[in-house]
Amino acid sequence: MDRILLAHGSGGKLSHELIKKNFLTRLRNQWLEKLDDSAVLEMGGQIAFTTDSYVISPLFFPGGDIGKLAVCGTVNDLAMSGATPLYLSLSLILEEGFLVMDLEKIVDSIEQTAQEAVVQIVTGDTKVVQQGFVDKLFINTSGIGIVPEGVNISGSRAQPGDRIILSGTIGEHGMTIMSQREGLKFSSQMESDCAPLNSLVTDMLKVCRDIHCLRDPTRGGVATTLNEFANQSKVGILVEEEAIIVSPPVQAMCELLGLDPIYIANEGKLIAIVPHDEADGILKKMKQNKYGTGAVIIGRVVAEHPGTVVMKTKLGTSRIVGMLAGDPLPRIC
Amino acid sequence: MDRILLAHGSGGKLSHELIKKNFLTRLRNQWLEKLDDSAVLEMGGQIAFTTDSYVISPLFFPGGDIGKLAVCGTVNDLAMSGATPLYLSLSLILEEGFLVMDLEKIVDSIEQTAQEAVVQIVTGDTKVVQQGFVDKLFINTSGIGIVPEGVNISGSRAQPGDRIILSGTIGEHGMTIMSQREGLKFSSQMESDCAPLNSLVTDMLKVCRDIHCLRDPTRGGVATTLNEFANQSKVGILVEEEAIIVSPPVQAMCELLGLDPIYIANEGKLIAIVPHDEADGILKKMKQNKYGTGAVIIGRVVAEHPGTVVMKTKLGTSRIVGMLAGDPLPRIC
Repeated sequence: MDRILLAHGSGGKLSHELIKKNFLTRLRNQWLEKLDDSAVLEMGGQIAFTTDSYVISPLFFPGGDIGKLAVCGTVNDLAMSGATPLYLSLSLILEEGFLVMDLEKIVDSIEQTAQEAVVQIVTGDTKVVQQGFVDKLFINTSGIGIVPEGVNISGSRAQPGDRIILSGTIGEHGMTIMSQREGLKFSSQMESDCAPLNSLVTDMLKVCRDIHCLRDPTRGGVATTLNEFANQSKVGILVEEEAIIVSPPVQAMCELLGLDPIYIANEGKLIAIVPHDEADGILKKMKQNKYGTGAVIIGRVVAEHPGTVVMKTKLGTSRIVGMLAGDPLPRIC
Repeated sequence: MDRILLAHGSGGKLSHELIKKNFLTRLRNQWLEKLDDSAVLEMGGQIAFTTDSYVISPLFFPGGDIGKLAVCGTVNDLAMSGATPLYLSLSLILEEGFLVMDLEKIVDSIEQTAQEAVVQIVTGDTKVVQQGFVDKLFINTSGIGIVPEGVNISGSRAQPGDRIILSGTIGEHGMTIMSQREGLKFSSQMESDCAPLNSLVTDMLKVCRDIHCLRDPTRGGVATTLNEFANQSKVGILVEEEAIIVSPPVQAMCELLGLDPIYIANEGKLIAIVPHDEADGILKKMKQNKYGTGAVIIGRVVAEHPGTVVMKTKLGTSRIVGMLAGDPLPRIC
């Protein structure tokens, strides 16, 4: 292909191809090639370091704004490597003419979210671009954290027999953003699930240090994350459609638009793959955390059909669930 | 003020005001309030962590491209805290329709520069935005490095008597970019000075661990960096115009456009403030490094006129040199 498509930024199939074909071939090293959310670095202790740029539109939405999102997203990427997030960087690209009042709201939101997540923003950068050359505001946050000894979480560690836990209902973030977009202003009580998940991960690690995989199903949704695990670990994944809970407004909107909620982005959910004999204990602990009250076991890891995610539908049939192929919702984070 | 102006991203006066009034009031902590290029964190060893977004236009220019710039800029920010840069993150915001060939060139350039600087890019992120909502490609690089024991470099450590060293000629980067812009295609042999300066800093620290201040005069130029030092250290700064070398093509272009080279951005130069009895030794060592061959002592730190930079002109008169006030050259990095 000659040109970048929107789907190259979707987190789905074309994103993976772009990373493998165009980046990994040039930049390969022991950290990048793992394709995990954070790089875990040997530097005194084990330090996790991650980055994410946020280009969401609109900037403000029910349940959050780009500032809250930028802190949660990076905190969550660190947490998904098992790290305790400690320090964030903050880099803004602003459009000339952007309202200072809006900027202040966003910076306030950054601060509040950082306080909740107990992280410090320790370095930053600001650029301004002429009107028309950036859409209002883009934010990059990078982060570092410390991985406790004995913790070794990676998308490549799923083993046959492991159980798969999902921390709650799905699709709220993506569908909230969609409903806010011009021309699609549905009336509903939908809110983004945008939240920092590090306390939830800390609770889970208290029950069991040997969590195998953890990831937040953002762009590309639950389906894409499960496919990543199946590919990275070379195992099969079997999930029960019935176990995956979709709230009625998200379900209704997905049906109206012909979208499958398992491909819709979340910003406050995680998927964990854990040893089968630890699953119940971890689940019980998760339900006590406010971001894990809706946690459920949605399936298990199998030796059959490695690299493939199979879903048992509510009708009792089975279907293969692939990665997100296009991008139904550009700029949802 | 109600709206963001281009000058808020210039690195000059309005940038400083924005950071102090709108960010520091909300986000203040012991690291951010230092206003240094990197945050130095106590985590086992002393770890430096920095971030920068690059929105330069055009993406390709004589002497480099946005990829080389993004590596050099972040490597240099780490080096300016005395750190040995080790790990970078890389986050891209791409416009739909961007040429893959161009992207590959840029990623190649990132890799080559990372090899020269001996840093690894260990984590990344890619976003794609619809046509017309971002100008081709923006890049964020964040970085971490280790600060050797006994090194304590900060813009607040300049002391009366210290000598000020500039590592070479000034203005090449800004004037090269300007000459490439639409409507200003001068013919000349000008090239950006874009370069990783960490080996130069390592050499300097071999001679003297007690370097007081180090900074690369990028946006806002030499004048702005000197003002930052004068303000942060509450000292006066006295520089000799004659000592500051401007190459003939840069000088010619500045005269034509009515610009003062001391406000023009550099991407491969540094300013060091060092104990007066170490200055000659450091200078000698710098001249042996390929990025320091043109190093000169340009002035000294004084107790008088704290917070103010005074320049002795070639005519023998004195003038106060303020910070960059507007932004003659948006998007030069």
